[in-house]
Amino acid sequence: MPTPKTNPGNFFEDFRLGQEILHAVPRTATEGDVALYIGLTGSRFALPSSDSFAQSIGLAGAPIDDLLAFHLIFGRTVADISLNAVANLGYAVGKFGVPLYPGDTIIAQSKVIGLKENSNHETGIVYVHSVGRNQAGEVVLDYVRWVMVKKRDKHAPTPETHVPQLPAALDVGEFEVPAELDLSNYDDELAGSPFLWDDYAVGEKIDHVDGMTLEESDHMTATRLYQNNAKVHFNQHTEGQGRFGRRLIYGGHIISLARALSFNGLANAFRIAAINGGRHVNPSFAGDTIYAWSEVLEKIEIPGRKDIGALRLKTIATKDDPCAAFPGPDSTGKYPESVVLDLDYTVLMKRRG
Amino acid sequence: MPTPKTNPGNFFEDFRLGQEILHAVPRTATEGDVALYIGLTGSRFALPSSDSFAQSIGLAGAPIDDLLAFHLIFGRTVADISLNAVANLGYAVGKFGVPLYPGDTIIAQSKVIGLKENSNHETGIVYVHSVGRNQAGEVVLDYVRWVMVKKRDKHAPTPETHVPQLPAALDVGEFEVPAELDLSNYDDELAGSPFLWDDYAVGEKIDHVDGMTLEESDHMTATRLYQNNAKVHFNQHTEGQGRFGRRLIYGGHIISLARALSFNGLANAFRIAAINGGRHVNPSFAGDTIYAWSEVLEKIEIPGRKDIGALRLKTIATKDDPCAAFPGPDSTGKYPESVVLDLDYTVLMKRRG
Amino acid sequence: MPTPKTNPGNFFEDFRLGQEILHAVPRTATEGDVALYIGLTGSRFALPSSDSFAQSIGLAGAPIDDLLAFHLIFGRTVADISLNAVANLGYAVGKFGVPLYPGDTIIAQSKVIGLKENSNHETGIVYVHSVGRNQAGEVVLDYVRWVMVKKRDKHAPTPETHVPQLPAALDVGEFEVPAELDLSNYDDELAGSPFLWDDYAVGEKIDHVDGMTLEESDHMTATRLYQNNAKVHFNQHTEGQGRFGRRLIYGGHIISLARALSFNGLANAFRIAAINGGRHVNPSFAGDTIYAWSEVLEKIEIPGRKDIGALRLKTIATKDDPCAAFPGPDSTGKYPESVVLDLDYTVLMKRRG
Repeated sequence: MPTPKTNPGNFFEDFRLGQEILHAVPRTATEGDVALYIGLTGSRFALPSSDSFAQSIGLAGAPIDDLLAFHLIFGRTVADISLNAVANLGYAVGKFGVPLYPGDTIIAQSKVIGLKENSNHETGIVYVHSVGRNQAGEVVLDYVRWVMVKKRDKHAPTPETHVPQLPAALDVGEFEVPAELDLSNYDDELAGSPFLWDDYAVGEKIDHVDGMTLEESDHMTATRLYQNNAKVHFNQHTEGQGRFGRRLIYGGHIISLARALSFNGLANAFRIAAINGGRHVNPSFAGDTIYAWSEVLEKIEIPGRKDIGALRLKTIATKDDPCAAFPGPDSTGKYPESVVLDLDYTVLMKRRG
Repeated sequence: MPTPKTNPGNFFEDFRLGQEILHAVPRTATEGDVALYIGLTGSRFALPSSDSFAQSIGLAGAPIDDLLAFHLIFGRTVADISLNAVANLGYAVGKFGVPLYPGDTIIAQSKVIGLKENSNHETGIVYVHSVGRNQAGEVVLDYVRWVMVKKRDKHAPTPETHVPQLPAALDVGEFEVPAELDLSNYDDELAGSPFLWDDYAVGEKIDHVDGMTLEESDHMTATRLYQNNAKVHFNQHTEGQGRFGRRLIYGGHIISLARALSFNGLANAFRIAAINGGRHVNPSFAGDTIYAWSEVLEKIEIPGRKDIGALRLKTIATKDDPCAAFPGPDSTGKYPESVVLDLDYTVLMKRRG
Repeated sequence: MPTPKTNPGNFFEDFRLGQEILHAVPRTATEGDVALYIGLTGSRFALPSSDSFAQSIGLAGAPIDDLLAFHLIFGRTVADISLNAVANLGYAVGKFGVPLYPGDTIIAQSKVIGLKENSNHETGIVYVHSVGRNQAGEVVLDYVRWVMVKKRDKHAPTPETHVPQLPAALDVGEFEVPAELDLSNYDDELAGSPFLWDDYAVGEKIDHVDGMTLEESDHMTATRLYQNNAKVHFNQHTEGQGRFGRRLIYGGHIISLARALSFNGLANAFRIAAINGGRHVNPSFAGDTIYAWSEVLEKIEIPGRKDIGALRLKTIATKDDPCAAFPGPDSTGKYPESVVLDLDYTVLMKRRG
């Protein structure tokens, strides 16, 4: 009998603390990805849309959108990390490194940095530290995520619990602000908003107003583009018999829609420096209309630069719930059912200097 | 209380005659846009599909499809001009300039050239002259359109009425026929039709036969690709409660489908020189099947060229109404409900010389 | 009355044995096509996804996916060959030649090599030998297909029957193995599977496990991308009154999904050398979920090469029928209704040497 040739993905008991995984399928980012990302999200940020705008601030040309780079890297990890996942639980210390450009190739690697079997012995949480590098070996993105993964065999031995200590947010000293960035010719009229870092206040809440309705084809095409092959996004034949009866939308697609919607109010947030944390609070399905709002959690000065500051933001996305009233967790931490995403991230923005 | 950061768009009373607007988000056109445009419209015109065909007629490579260039430019204007529009009423004197190529960046600017408040004081018509230029400052497209825009406040003062005089069609002396065009090696077999300028007669009607059914994902992806963020195209949650109950399809997408369908009968119309006028007669929605027919309004000789002529065309698109009987306006100018588009434009076509 | 300008396509009686057709619309393949192909199929093969992986095995950069090249070529032939087809019956002796790269332009030509009118005189089978070449005149793909085409006039004379003799499979001596291929640095970990040619056995069956649900927008966008304008894929207004009541999905899209699904079990099948035969056994429609399985029919040594071997495969795709039990034809050759595709093709795979 020949060896089975298919990849069942890893179950919880297959992971070992310290295990290093080189993910398959290096991926060259192209202008095709750029166009498809704009087409699937409606993102209007000027920097990834325009070579001339990018050149006006010192870059060689339009970089790949930060979240597109995130998805291309994340996509490589799925076959090894989350094929048998029940839920994607969270993210931490996500650091964006050098910009990714069309023509660059991503390779992704991960290391298992934590394991915690659940008391029902049917699942366990796997913590991975993933790094996406370009063909020159430079770090494009470095992050930790944790997922609840099924066990193949309930009776397989329970590994020693190890839960990594993870800071709540990336420290400013760790932000990578590309050295070549020079914002002296940054044109906020072309960027789409007169509001710079100086104009935002801690505690300020911004309703991004617009809504984007999800379609099956859109989320599937995005997820396939990223070569993320998690079955729950694609197979209505099985999902129709599953717990939701619907194909589950890749949470990363919701992150991208929230970021695209946030252009309305945060147009000058030209780059994501860090993803500090994120929860896919409730699932999203085709037919849902995504709305979003943001709160400024911190204003951060960048040492050595008076032209760029950072804003730590919380962006919440909802389904079918416009955000004029800023829906979010109550004092006990319980979220309304309409909240689908709570993302804590840090963006770079021009300062008046 | 911090300053609101979102852009509510302009209401009728925000516009001033002579006002100049530099639209945000310069946009580099890429081969990604080229592929997505073919994928979303099915366009088969040889010139934007093929570097070798383009080079055979003197161009450096395949130019961006004229209508794709139109949409990329139009998309930039929406946030300032038509975010609060009730209806896109018309177009005039649309002139295509230098070809746009992959790698070129579009910047768009508009000037308000007319204002006319409606008698109900709830809306008004805004006339804008918009110009899209490439990174070298060359004009790619120059056109006028007018939209019915909501008033924020019924009681805001009524501006002096100014309705610009607009010619019914662009004069041949204004056509831009790229100087490098040399049709001596134009291969009509490769172009897809043996019929050249000489073979068309004024008054001739052409039923383009084929139909294309609209899907939500398709029109939304096209409209997002153009970074046109008009809410009515995207938000089923609100549109479901609105006057149509459906997401309204961007009229420009219907223009593109009509042009793509017109390949069958007008395959050698290799370039659009001008858009003389256009009416989105009735709205289109997902599930509608678009058909089209054209009438030759004029045959125009190009001074100084015996190898290229122009045809002024009327193309009518319908929903769920095949065009063998050439549905169009009756003698009073009333259209059948099935007509969704009446477009008056001028194309360039090879002449036998 | 002016000459009708539209192209009705050819009917059975319009074809002549030996007729040569130069298909319209040369097509430049771009990175936009690459991204859209990944987005529409979820294909994860490393070679077309990654410049660096391609360079590691001696190629200049990531080649266009073999099946994407197939569709781009096939798309050009439709307007002349199958616009009036009732069914696409089969393929044979499909040979992949030089790799196609982004920036290359395809031109397609066909020759009629067989004709056989059906006894009802309403249709007939047309056999065509089609060749797609790049701008340097090199053969990218060379294949035979046959289609059942409608007659315009039942009483038109019946041509002499000529059915070409076609081998069941392309001979190994005819495989084109690009000379520049050097697999000494082929990294199977990056390719996604440890299983090389040596590890597969004749008769081995592989269930590819995953399912992909079809959406109207997805199949239409793929088919439009290929500039395949066969009406049955696009027009719900007419198809709704037709024999299926639905838009028929282009069989080639099912081939692509089957190939993408086959990555799970055949990840190292880095190139398709030949398409020996194929049957679109039953039609597919939006809402169907495609599954696939493969059987190794032959292991073929490549003369002069110890680093690459070939596997002749049968891949069967089904709708809504997971393939653990390997559904296929019974001893009489009758297929279950769930089978939509039976494809016989030969792939290249690394050998241990």
